[in-house]
Amino acid sequence: MKIAVLGTGTVGRTVAGALAERGHDVVVGTRDPESTVARTEADGMGNPPFAQWQAGHAAVALASYADAAAQSELVINATSGAGSLAALEAAGAANLDGKILVDIANPLDFSQGMPPSLNPVNSDSLGEQIQRAFPAVKVVKTLNTMNAHLMVDPGSVADGDHSVFVSGNDADAKRAVTELLGSLGHTDVIDLGDITTARGSEMLLPIWLRLWGALGTPAFNFKIAR
Amino acid sequence: MKIAVLGTGTVGRTVAGALAERGHDVVVGTRDPESTVARTEADGMGNPPFAQWQAGHAAVALASYADAAAQSELVINATSGAGSLAALEAAGAANLDGKILVDIANPLDFSQGMPPSLNPVNSDSLGEQIQRAFPAVKVVKTLNTMNAHLMVDPGSVADGDHSVFVSGNDADAKRAVTELLGSLGHTDVIDLGDITTARGSEMLLPIWLRLWGALGTPAFNFKIAR
Repeated sequence: MKIAVLGTGTVGRTVAGALAERGHDVVVGTRDPESTVARTEADGMGNPPFAQWQAGHAAVALASYADAAAQSELVINATSGAGSLAALEAAGAANLDGKILVDIANPLDFSQGMPPSLNPVNSDSLGEQIQRAFPAVKVVKTLNTMNAHLMVDPGSVADGDHSVFVSGNDADAKRAVTELLGSLGHTDVIDLGDITTARGSEMLLPIWLRLWGALGTPAFNFKIAR
Repeated sequence: MKIAVLGTGTVGRTVAGALAERGHDVVVGTRDPESTVARTEADGMGNPPFAQWQAGHAAVALASYADAAAQSELVINATSGAGSLAALEAAGAANLDGKILVDIANPLDFSQGMPPSLNPVNSDSLGEQIQRAFPAVKVVKTLNTMNAHLMVDPGSVADGDHSVFVSGNDADAKRAVTELLGSLGHTDVIDLGDITTARGSEMLLPIWLRLWGALGTPAFNFKIAR
């Protein structure tokens, strides 16, 4: 499948690399491709420059948000939550309408110090904000409840015996995303319901962050025991 | 141990009954014991009148919030979240100070319709509100992330292979509560950190409520796979 992954950080790179390895035709979308490839310093998270990463992932293309979305059948939002709506505006409704948009971002708000809080939260969610801003897009919220490495290699923790959630208004889109998740190794995909249920999965982040601290590793995931 | 369970609803009854069965000296606290025993109708949740429940649990006493707290070494807040601070005010700081207060309530807000939202949320929690209101009490947040039946019979789901969280500022209090949880059958007790981490466990409620809908049963729990 032709897939655009919007976002050049850890999450975007990890997902893009894994999907390319599985034979998908992957393009990473960024605000300004020229400035992205021109960077020679590690980013704020300590990731090596994108050009260095791309040298090891020659099958992954780089394009503007708009060009990446335009040439793809399915779009993955892997931008930081605070910048997601702006990135999707740059991608453009015309390039997104009718497509599945897999939203794997979290609306983390670092403005009040650490640990970050969520904004929006409780009575709204990033997934819903995106769906409202792009009513003709089939938004499916998923994968936002785990570390990037686990997103693409669930078997690396507890032999993959844990859960991933999908939220969205379009049943066919959720079925397609569930199939994609299965191809990545996810065996327990739980359909929470419509896009308003993204509030639930996004609100896992605060305990996820505390568990990271308590366990000393991000190599864990939620399993719904039943 | 002498234990007060504040709250006469499903959660209070379930926890009080289970602790009495394990040999603890249990008193249920209520706002007005006379009116509680005088009720002959099922409550809003369909629970039989308290007197009918108590007839089958003769070892469990009933007292006012203040009397229940005064005569106990450990107090469990099993009131509804919206009424917890008022109930604890009625119990009285003098009857609570220096004791462990196990807060198993959730600040569910039904005022905006269903599903309920949380209030407070994100940058505060009920656990923290209680700790601030009663600074000399050792508040430990726990058990609020599962159905009442599972609280006292964790083995009834997935052979007990799931997790429970503790949050609190006092390490000794968390150790004592962890021991109590173990006596109920909980095998994976995760210490999230200080009482501010109660934000994380309380914010599990929205996805818990959606999972209840999606799975069609409250007989499930979060396990932290690692």
